[in-house]
Amino acid sequence: MSGRAEGRPPPRGFPESEFEGRLQRAQALMARDGLAALLLTTEAELRYFSGFLTQFWQSPTRPWFLVVPFRGKPVAVIPEIGAEAMARTWIEDIRTWSSPHPSDDGVTLLAAALSEFAAAGGRIGLAMARETQLRMPLADFERLRRALPAAEFADATAILRRLRQVKSEREIAKIAWVCSLASEAFAAAPRLFHEGQSEIEAFRAFKMECLRCGVDDVPYLVGGAGPGGYGDIISPPSERALADGDVLILDTGSVFDGYFCDFDRNYAIGRASDEVRRAYEVAYRATEAGLAAARPGATCADLFKAMQAVLEAGGALGNDVGRLGHGLGSQLTEWPSHTAWDDTVLEPGMVLTLEPGMSFAPGRVMVHEENIVIREAGPELLTRRAPPELPVIG
Amino acid sequence: MSGRAEGRPPPRGFPESEFEGRLQRAQALMARDGLAALLLTTEAELRYFSGFLTQFWQSPTRPWFLVVPFRGKPVAVIPEIGAEAMARTWIEDIRTWSSPHPSDDGVTLLAAALSEFAAAGGRIGLAMARETQLRMPLADFERLRRALPAAEFADATAILRRLRQVKSEREIAKIAWVCSLASEAFAAAPRLFHEGQSEIEAFRAFKMECLRCGVDDVPYLVGGAGPGGYGDIISPPSERALADGDVLILDTGSVFDGYFCDFDRNYAIGRASDEVRRAYEVAYRATEAGLAAARPGATCADLFKAMQAVLEAGGALGNDVGRLGHGLGSQLTEWPSHTAWDDTVLEPGMVLTLEPGMSFAPGRVMVHEENIVIREAGPELLTRRAPPELPVIG
Repeated sequence: MSGRAEGRPPPRGFPESEFEGRLQRAQALMARDGLAALLLTTEAELRYFSGFLTQFWQSPTRPWFLVVPFRGKPVAVIPEIGAEAMARTWIEDIRTWSSPHPSDDGVTLLAAALSEFAAAGGRIGLAMARETQLRMPLADFERLRRALPAAEFADATAILRRLRQVKSEREIAKIAWVCSLASEAFAAAPRLFHEGQSEIEAFRAFKMECLRCGVDDVPYLVGGAGPGGYGDIISPPSERALADGDVLILDTGSVFDGYFCDFDRNYAIGRASDEVRRAYEVAYRATEAGLAAARPGATCADLFKAMQAVLEAGGALGNDVGRLGHGLGSQLTEWPSHTAWDDTVLEPGMVLTLEPGMSFAPGRVMVHEENIVIREAGPELLTRRAPPELPVIG
Repeated sequence: MSGRAEGRPPPRGFPESEFEGRLQRAQALMARDGLAALLLTTEAELRYFSGFLTQFWQSPTRPWFLVVPFRGKPVAVIPEIGAEAMARTWIEDIRTWSSPHPSDDGVTLLAAALSEFAAAGGRIGLAMARETQLRMPLADFERLRRALPAAEFADATAILRRLRQVKSEREIAKIAWVCSLASEAFAAAPRLFHEGQSEIEAFRAFKMECLRCGVDDVPYLVGGAGPGGYGDIISPPSERALADGDVLILDTGSVFDGYFCDFDRNYAIGRASDEVRRAYEVAYRATEAGLAAARPGATCADLFKAMQAVLEAGGALGNDVGRLGHGLGSQLTEWPSHTAWDDTVLEPGMVLTLEPGMSFAPGRVMVHEENIVIREAGPELLTRRAPPELPVIG
């Protein structure tokens, strides 16, 4: 199976064997680390082990729990409202309570489930380290600790990271597909964006084009425009009208079947100064350097250094993003990070962004981004490569 | 100012006076509770006190902190990537670090900021109770505690809930506007949905219509269809084609300038059985009962009882949602909850959903939802009221 989307969307969902494989790999790592169970609370964690896919996570009201025991299938401990949807996954043991609850929002039920696997002195793993959160009320976590006085809670971030960082071919196919759809939407840029249009209208036109191309959702679309360059890349679009000489950037995390793309494209409106063209070319060449370095056995730090060398030689004044790319999958951003200090070794199946960016003048930045999957032979581009010269439109 | 949108969108953002008022009210409650500072970590909390609006929260990688001191303006302790965007808010004291960081992802900087206000023995409030989360790695929170050994961390959920539960006229105008836009999109249903169309295509058409009508985003659109009724209301759309005799529900949380609507609409495809028509009418009448009860001085429990009485008299077999509506604002769902046990007293300015739902046959449910704001004289509908009889389309 190729990771490259070919014109037909990949099937939605996963066969049960996908989840069986994930569970087996998890349990092998749990055995290594002496964990009796994993306690999972976030959307990405629950979905990884169960296939439970819903936008209901937008509602912060209710906690959701999945317990992965050292042996046997995961146990869902969830609000009643999710029972029907969870029953359509491969999970069999589904325990529910009426949530929200005035005094016990699932804690007693969760403690009972955990104590089946983590009896006296058992270690319960949960994500505690960088890039993780505990998605339950802090007071309820304290209650859970008191309900399981003999249990030890240990950090399991390394296990979850190890598992999720290398994607299966089915996962790669979903990411490749959404990358191809968003690439198609960007190809319509000359038709979508024009001088005099507000950023808000430009971004709305792009969202509609992404949907028309077939993405499920556009949960992330940030960027902006400014004369001779934009100043930041995480803001929502403003009411300012695009003007001759602007540089416009759109950075999208669109989604297909729960998997993200995450890449951007830059456009000059009407005309581009030599300074802006140069900055674009530097970022383009930095991406090329990243592509050349992105081979199995290299580290994220190697990738960072390869891109950073081009940026510095090209006159970069700095970079406040904190890294030059990252992992990508069921979240917009995942481990690892392309930084000087991330020694993660690249392996086939890792899906990554290459995101070289720099400040090239006071208050003006240039950021490029492509999405790749690491293969035995080197990187495979999932996005349609940005052109080597800054496109002038509008 | 009327909360009802009139044809022109309300202005984006808020004047500084809005944030000053929020801060003053917070500090009065903090004085009452003996809190030296609030520590805020979530999107909704940071935005409430700063106006910081970005979809960058989709990335779970970096923590973001806002410290609200007992006196003076809030202090932002955030990743460098957000400095430029935060500088456009009314916040002046912005402290940044390069994130992600290998060993200290903002903890030392945060501890220093907190210790300025919460010296020896000072109490630091943060959200710990129902419907809250701590959006930072658990291990970093433990590090923070160790860095501030004399500080006491106390639950401040009641303060945040008290503040956010009653909306300002400017907030109401934004919610009213997005309600009117989504109502307009639903009015296009006969043109958008038809027999033979997959649920995925129907939902995509609706998302594009919402954007065309002027919403910024459609972060939440769930529902589905089934012969003679649907079975759950939190699932993503499936590849199943809409068929004659189906009941279709779409439930949308669309957004304008960071504020949500949250309501649904039901449609029969081709024809509707008497049983389905009856279930629809019961839910409609339950909403009417909720509207009649939604006056200042009544409680959420009163609202629940008024709606529940109609549902039970109408033959409800049960309801696994756990409540019959909730608060609404900068999150899809907020406190309070319309349950038998929520004694929150309704006040002018509260924006609420009325969401009566019931199982009317095994595996089939009927849910209605409208959005209202409580006024002195009673409820004001923000959504265009659903028709009293199940619309047949397609």
